[in-house]
Amino acid sequence: MKATVLVRLKTEVLDPQGDAVRRALEKLGFQGVRGVRVGKLIEIEIDEAHENAPDLAVRLQKMADEMLANPVIEDYEVKL
Amino acid sequence: MKATVLVRLKTEVLDPQGDAVRRALEKLGFQGVRGVRVGKLIEIEIDEAHENAPDLAVRLQKMADEMLANPVIEDYEVKL
Repeated sequence: MKATVLVRLKTEVLDPQGDAVRRALEKLGFQGVRGVRVGKLIEIEIDEAHENAPDLAVRLQKMADEMLANPVIEDYEVKL
Repeated sequence: MKATVLVRLKTEVLDPQGDAVRRALEKLGFQGVRGVRVGKLIEIEIDEAHENAPDLAVRLQKMADEMLANPVIEDYEVKL
C-alpha cells in the first residue's frame, strides 16, 4: 500500500522558491496568480507485512516528525 | 481559491532522493518501508477575479506543462 505525506512550509515562513515560481508564471503571461507555495509530496510504499499494523499511522507520524519534515518550519499531513 | 499541482517523477525515472530517504528511515529503525518517492506539492493561490474563469483548468494545465513540471521526467496532476 501507499502512504502519502504532504509537507508544507508553515504559513509564517517565507517561501522564496514559491515567490520565484509566481514571478516566472507572471513573466510567462499567466495572470491571476496571487501566490505560490512549494512543498513536498512524499509517497511511501509500505510492505504488505506491515500495512495492517495497528500502529502504522503513529509510525508514519513519527517518520514525518523525525525525518520527512522539519517541524520548526514545516507542517505535515499524513494520508493513508 | 487555491489550486494544487502534484508533481511526481515518472515511474521509470530513478529517484535518488527518495532512495536516500528510504535508507535513512531504515537506519532510524522504521521497518516495512519498501520504497519512497519524493515529488512536489505546488499550491497556487488564484485571484478572486480569475477563479471563475472558464479556462482556469486549461491554464493551470499549461502552467504545469511549461513551468511547474518537466514533462520529460515528471507527471503532474492538477486539483481544483
